[in-house]
Amino acid sequence: MDERVLVPWQETREGAPGDLAVDVYDGDSEPPGDLSDVVFFVLPYYRRQAPKLVPSMPRLRVLQTLNAGYDDLLPLLRPGVTLCNGRGLHDASTAEHALGLILASQRDFPRWRDAQREGRWDTEHTRSLTDSRVLIIGYGSIGAALDTRLRACEAEVVRVARRPRPAEDVHGIADLPRLLPSADIVVLIAPLTADTRGLIGSRELALLRDDALVVNVGRGPVLDTAALLAENGRVRAALDVTDPEPLPADHPLWHAPGVFITPHVAGGSASFYPRAKRLVAEQLRRFATGEPLANVVRTG
Amino acid sequence: MDERVLVPWQETREGAPGDLAVDVYDGDSEPPGDLSDVVFFVLPYYRRQAPKLVPSMPRLRVLQTLNAGYDDLLPLLRPGVTLCNGRGLHDASTAEHALGLILASQRDFPRWRDAQREGRWDTEHTRSLTDSRVLIIGYGSIGAALDTRLRACEAEVVRVARRPRPAEDVHGIADLPRLLPSADIVVLIAPLTADTRGLIGSRELALLRDDALVVNVGRGPVLDTAALLAENGRVRAALDVTDPEPLPADHPLWHAPGVFITPHVAGGSASFYPRAKRLVAEQLRRFATGEPLANVVRTG
Repeated sequence: MDERVLVPWQETREGAPGDLAVDVYDGDSEPPGDLSDVVFFVLPYYRRQAPKLVPSMPRLRVLQTLNAGYDDLLPLLRPGVTLCNGRGLHDASTAEHALGLILASQRDFPRWRDAQREGRWDTEHTRSLTDSRVLIIGYGSIGAALDTRLRACEAEVVRVARRPRPAEDVHGIADLPRLLPSADIVVLIAPLTADTRGLIGSRELALLRDDALVVNVGRGPVLDTAALLAENGRVRAALDVTDPEPLPADHPLWHAPGVFITPHVAGGSASFYPRAKRLVAEQLRRFATGEPLANVVRTG
Repeated sequence: MDERVLVPWQETREGAPGDLAVDVYDGDSEPPGDLSDVVFFVLPYYRRQAPKLVPSMPRLRVLQTLNAGYDDLLPLLRPGVTLCNGRGLHDASTAEHALGLILASQRDFPRWRDAQREGRWDTEHTRSLTDSRVLIIGYGSIGAALDTRLRACEAEVVRVARRPRPAEDVHGIADLPRLLPSADIVVLIAPLTADTRGLIGSRELALLRDDALVVNVGRGPVLDTAALLAENGRVRAALDVTDPEPLPADHPLWHAPGVFITPHVAGGSASFYPRAKRLVAEQLRRFATGEPLANVVRTG
């Protein structure tokens, strides 16, 4: 029986090592019939349905996600399956989106867009990012990329991660109650774990200044949706991820005052795909030659 | 007869040198009756009507605008009136707004805002700023501030000004036909002069790639509105200034495909006002002591 690889892009198939049997499954088309011979599965980036195929792959040895987060995949993995993630692929794209959400919120872009639709020229000065203090919670490689951008914008950055790293000027999460009251902007880039679920709830939001901005480009449940709604516009938010997600059409968060929503698109811009394709090509090369894979987050 | 100063902020009045008679005129309230004794006039930043008062000030010696541009004020000036502008006050605010317009356009924020209003979660990957080539046309202090921000976003910057400045890697405007075809994004920060009116017209737009983005944070008439409309979305635009301005409610530019409009708010964010107030306080101090004024653009 052959060993088969499933990848999301035709061009990856064409460039793959000659001894691999590669098929394309992009997540939109029907999956190629019998999956019992699949040993290496690259999840399509918009992988809403794709993880459901994993239980039909008894010979699977490698599952490659292009996301940084993978909490939803762990329950699907039998012993012997190695999981690799997309760490690093999203840094520039996600940091850029987070910066865009900050600027759009500080400079009232949603308001100007609404005015544009009504043909209304209604000028008023706005907040700015310059001279603001920005807390980055979940300071890793994406946080560092955002830090560089924020400093170029003449903002002050305060770094927070799970554990303090004094050498990098990173505070521990235990400092949050002391740091929140002086923040103008809080950016959440934390992964979803038992510790981070509901990390920013009503108690933390209450510590923020009036008109402070919370940006979430990490995982939806890190910010407590009900607590944010209860703020009723006192604290603003710009959210690329939500809880629940996707947000149902009738959810009150869509129309909450001071909230701007983008549909989980931070990591997946044009700059992401070339980087993702290079990673997958390299992983297939390593797999074919028996070299250790990159970005292993769970050994099989 | 006393000599009077008109300023737009109460706090500037309170901090002014003791020998100056200072009144507040914010541009919204009624101007203080007889203006024949006004010798120093600080135009309110949103100065739609304020310049019309200048002809009623026969003893005027200094006109201070908080804008960088001043082409509309020159016809109002009698001999003997010194004009000072707001050069430098807007650098961070305008550069930040231009960066926001770029990110919002590349990352489809107007589309996501429209989807939000409809409660529609509709995910698709977008363009990015990272790895893009950005032409800055009108490379001065605002351009330099934008340059710093763009490089932090991993974009490539090409600098263009009226005259080439090889030592600063700045191309002359004559190079435009050669530079436009490889640009992903073009940012206009040029002042309005006889040379720059209609600088980007149908011939220049035709040289741009499909889906290129033109950002205007300088003066509306530098970009030919009719030529942009004729592109019908082939070239996108993000405009903080327009021609005409303000844009009438029934103007087709409001609803042109691929166009995002903000109502001339780039320079006037929260970071601008503290800087503007410091400049005016310093100008009044210099005026009272007879020292030379800063930012003189036309000697009286």
